[in-house]
Amino acid sequence: MRLSQMLLVTLRNEPSDAEIPSHKLLIKAGYIHRIGSGIYTYLPLMWRVIQKIAQIVREEMNITGAQECLLPQLQPANLWKESGRWDAYTKAEGIMFTLTDRKKYDLALGPTHEEVITTVARDIICSYRQLPICLYQIQTKFRDEIRPRFGLMRGREFVMKDAYSFHANQESLKASYQNMHVAYSNILRRIGMAFQSVQADSGSIGGSGSQEFMILAETGEDEVLYTEDGKYAANLEKAISLPVNAETSIFTNCGKQKTPSADTVEKLCNLLKCSPTQVLKNVLYEITYNNETTVLVLVSIRGDQEVNDIKLQNELTKIAPQYKAKTVILMTKTDAESQVKWAAKSLPLGYIAPDLEDNYIDSRKQVNSKFLRLTDTTAIDLKDFITGANEPGYHILGANWGEQFKKPIAVVDLRKAKKGDYAVHDPHQTLQSARGIEVGHIFQLGIKYSQVMKATYTNQEGKEEPLWMGCYGIGVSRLAQAAVEQSNDKDGIIWPVAIAPYHVIICIPNMNNDKQVETAEKLYIELNKAGIETLIDDRKERAGVKFKDADLLGIPYRIITGKSLVNNKVELVKRANKEAYEFTIQEVVVVLKNWIREALD
Amino acid sequence: MRLSQMLLVTLRNEPSDAEIPSHKLLIKAGYIHRIGSGIYTYLPLMWRVIQKIAQIVREEMNITGAQECLLPQLQPANLWKESGRWDAYTKAEGIMFTLTDRKKYDLALGPTHEEVITTVARDIICSYRQLPICLYQIQTKFRDEIRPRFGLMRGREFVMKDAYSFHANQESLKASYQNMHVAYSNILRRIGMAFQSVQADSGSIGGSGSQEFMILAETGEDEVLYTEDGKYAANLEKAISLPVNAETSIFTNCGKQKTPSADTVEKLCNLLKCSPTQVLKNVLYEITYNNETTVLVLVSIRGDQEVNDIKLQNELTKIAPQYKAKTVILMTKTDAESQVKWAAKSLPLGYIAPDLEDNYIDSRKQVNSKFLRLTDTTAIDLKDFITGANEPGYHILGANWGEQFKKPIAVVDLRKAKKGDYAVHDPHQTLQSARGIEVGHIFQLGIKYSQVMKATYTNQEGKEEPLWMGCYGIGVSRLAQAAVEQSNDKDGIIWPVAIAPYHVIICIPNMNNDKQVETAEKLYIELNKAGIETLIDDRKERAGVKFKDADLLGIPYRIITGKSLVNNKVELVKRANKEAYEFTIQEVVVVLKNWIREALD
Repeated sequence: MRLSQMLLVTLRNEPSDAEIPSHKLLIKAGYIHRIGSGIYTYLPLMWRVIQKIAQIVREEMNITGAQECLLPQLQPANLWKESGRWDAYTKAEGIMFTLTDRKKYDLALGPTHEEVITTVARDIICSYRQLPICLYQIQTKFRDEIRPRFGLMRGREFVMKDAYSFHANQESLKASYQNMHVAYSNILRRIGMAFQSVQADSGSIGGSGSQEFMILAETGEDEVLYTEDGKYAANLEKAISLPVNAETSIFTNCGKQKTPSADTVEKLCNLLKCSPTQVLKNVLYEITYNNETTVLVLVSIRGDQEVNDIKLQNELTKIAPQYKAKTVILMTKTDAESQVKWAAKSLPLGYIAPDLEDNYIDSRKQVNSKFLRLTDTTAIDLKDFITGANEPGYHILGANWGEQFKKPIAVVDLRKAKKGDYAVHDPHQTLQSARGIEVGHIFQLGIKYSQVMKATYTNQEGKEEPLWMGCYGIGVSRLAQAAVEQSNDKDGIIWPVAIAPYHVIICIPNMNNDKQVETAEKLYIELNKAGIETLIDDRKERAGVKFKDADLLGIPYRIITGKSLVNNKVELVKRANKEAYEFTIQEVVVVLKNWIREALD
Repeated sequence: MRLSQMLLVTLRNEPSDAEIPSHKLLIKAGYIHRIGSGIYTYLPLMWRVIQKIAQIVREEMNITGAQECLLPQLQPANLWKESGRWDAYTKAEGIMFTLTDRKKYDLALGPTHEEVITTVARDIICSYRQLPICLYQIQTKFRDEIRPRFGLMRGREFVMKDAYSFHANQESLKASYQNMHVAYSNILRRIGMAFQSVQADSGSIGGSGSQEFMILAETGEDEVLYTEDGKYAANLEKAISLPVNAETSIFTNCGKQKTPSADTVEKLCNLLKCSPTQVLKNVLYEITYNNETTVLVLVSIRGDQEVNDIKLQNELTKIAPQYKAKTVILMTKTDAESQVKWAAKSLPLGYIAPDLEDNYIDSRKQVNSKFLRLTDTTAIDLKDFITGANEPGYHILGANWGEQFKKPIAVVDLRKAKKGDYAVHDPHQTLQSARGIEVGHIFQLGIKYSQVMKATYTNQEGKEEPLWMGCYGIGVSRLAQAAVEQSNDKDGIIWPVAIAPYHVIICIPNMNNDKQVETAEKLYIELNKAGIETLIDDRKERAGVKFKDADLLGIPYRIITGKSLVNNKVELVKRANKEAYEFTIQEVVVVLKNWIREALD
């Protein structure tokens, strides 16, 4: 392709509305063009990248035996009502775009396709003989994001591959899930990215187990905890660990003590000269569900630990499924004072004891309610601990479970794991931390959708059973930008060879120099003949502009038909490390072919 | 691919909700699955057909120098307001889906992309040096059809290729338009379809000229008129012709005559024993624009001719652009009586004269208005004609222009051309008629969008000019179904080789016969090795079921590892004509390779 005939416009200045390097670079280098908030045009160079990623994904999916299809983007609302997800996806924080057709029927714009595929399976699969089966599609999806940002990272319209598998039993599902894990690893390896697969929370998709695939990058939105032996990796949301041991408490005699202005663990420890590991922290969460109903939850946890909101949310759902699709908000003093009356007083936030009385009054609604209580596993091993006295300005020192306070009943893992914690599988290892960009997520859905939507099959005994399901997503457009986020330098993008829009760019430094032009044109033909995807910068621009643009575009290899021509040679430069070589025209084609083959191996 | 591992379910009965053969067959053969009104899932076999068509389209587009990109499906409403098409596409008969995001901004779901691409061009193209340029995409589009029907023919969601070209002048646009004409012809020729390119009306897309590409099929929704010399072809909407000559009138003396119960041309001619070519017919149309304003138009035309609504609409738009986006309805007696007062009476429909007085009262609104008057070119040559007397039950016989009636002012072509009319370019030829399915439409848009959306470039003289634009659409999913509509028989689909989901299907008549299975499996490997796309029907089904399914699926060639095995041969059958041959295993691969190569040439 000739740059002179391409719609390429690179920017000299940093785009002002882009926050992270990859977003800036894709705009600056003319790969994408913004049409509206979270809505982009993929210009020809970008589209080549997307197609290359899609093709790698397609090949690896086909190897697993999955078959490509295309599901509709317009989805009748009744399917989402059948699955029970319509409200969660449309109300309050719901991220689904909806619309109404001319007959006033509601439609959704697909953010995901569990409902549609389950309908197809329900209609088409009848017998165990048809199983297992896996269908996938590569298609644009839609999300009405609260805050679209970071370019293609969190767009309102994005390209995804989603696959759905159907099985006669859980073993078959697990086998498919494992195959998909292999396929996803192959995809990311072939694309040439540093990645990590991690245990993850299943979120609103649901199911019994899920793993995310993270592209490692400093600016990644997610934190990943892992061990160096490679045996454990999890999203922070899901990660478990063993905390550091608590120090032995010095307060062996129990008593109430005045602790003015010590409403945080830090202030308290400063005052008492103790370790936060000796403190039992009691915090209040306000849980909103069904869009308006609230409940207050008292969580007790060791003073040096933090509560993981996702774990809390999941535990609450286990206790009472109606708390699903809620928000979980740590209660502040202001909230507590304005909203809750407890024992005819305000709540003593910062001084709460683990046995806060069961009843409080929600002063907004004048409803008398019970606190829910949950205790983190770190809290039950504490001895002679320090905790609130349920009275502002006072703490109990040297308290013990079964003595001053009743032994807690609901003891669960609510703790946010963190870097430096010990690994559960090997307490001699500590957890490491990295940042990542989630590009893939695979789920064992089980019978969640098939049961409620009545997608059944007849098993070998002639009995009707719900289908077992898995689903497997990979963000194709997100992956393209994540590649840039992982691989760039101050001068621009450095595309991995496997997904670069072109393999090589020929720069003609001086368009008025006939020999430079002729050599370049000859090479252009030779390279194309050899199957090497070649750009030729034949624009009437200065050499400096061309080199700058070539760096910005990030094409893996650059040929310069410049000074070296006196020795009948051309310069060949690697974009990644700027290493430069000289080769004859005959040599350069062979060398490049080898380099590309090696890079794709 | 093994049928035993494919999600293939064929139906034994005719699907009840499908009206035309192609729709029935695609459902019956398990190619598509309905999710909602006008919304389908493309199952794996169908998706292969769609991808093959897309790839042929892509290759031919790339040859023209067009570059592939992807434009957003979500389109901010402000772009459509800028172009002035928001109202026409959203109100009343508007076919655009719209939605509102969480911030209450209006969005459209793209039915077409002139607005988006013009925005991109406005931002990126500045100089004549960047021109010409052509971008295209292959993508799902949306239309909120009044009556979705015929499967993929008129769906609410469909796959299209749309291309947009930008130029510095009209000559360049015309050259591009010609290239696209060639590319479209190549695409349809390569797919292997009988087609006709025809002059067409530009509809709501607009511009100065357009051509449609029609797949010829008896059930086609459109009528095409053409001459056998291949020099003229047009959509009925747009077609022009020379009508048959009028007979000489026998009423040489002018006079008013009582003509009871002769309110149609047919009744009148029966009564007077005259030819309809001697009659001047005067009909009334009610034009609605801006959703509610109406105007009445009196059209005079020769008695044997019909008015072409599209031509009438286009002429009205020329006279007064505000009449655009209206409905054109022939007024019935009931309408006229209830809605219009004229000269204190009802309108004498069936007896109207060409000089109906200028004022009438719209009795719904009590507005005094003027009739608009248009006369078709066939009407001005009439001599001694018969026409209404503006009095129920009376006609004027032997009337002449310039005598009983003033010569008409607005004389235009409003006539519906028809089969048997003489061709304008050669009056010795008569027009032939065929039915077709529109699958492509190319437009010279001119500066319609660039002017109103201010998409300009700087020309060689440094002056800013609006960009010249063309746009070129081809319905990929529609084309797939049109192929079936053109090519099927009582047993099922007959895919052209170029877009068949697979080239060949191996049927194993008896799965319990080891030799049959072994031979088939060996052939399956050989054929795949030879690059022949092969299905193997290894299901545990009866031979009859397999043959029936193979016919239904429409795979071009079928190999049967059956009786012929006694001679160490297999049977090879052509789906199109059921011709059967016997070949050895070695031969069959070579023969098939040749047949496929010939079919794709």
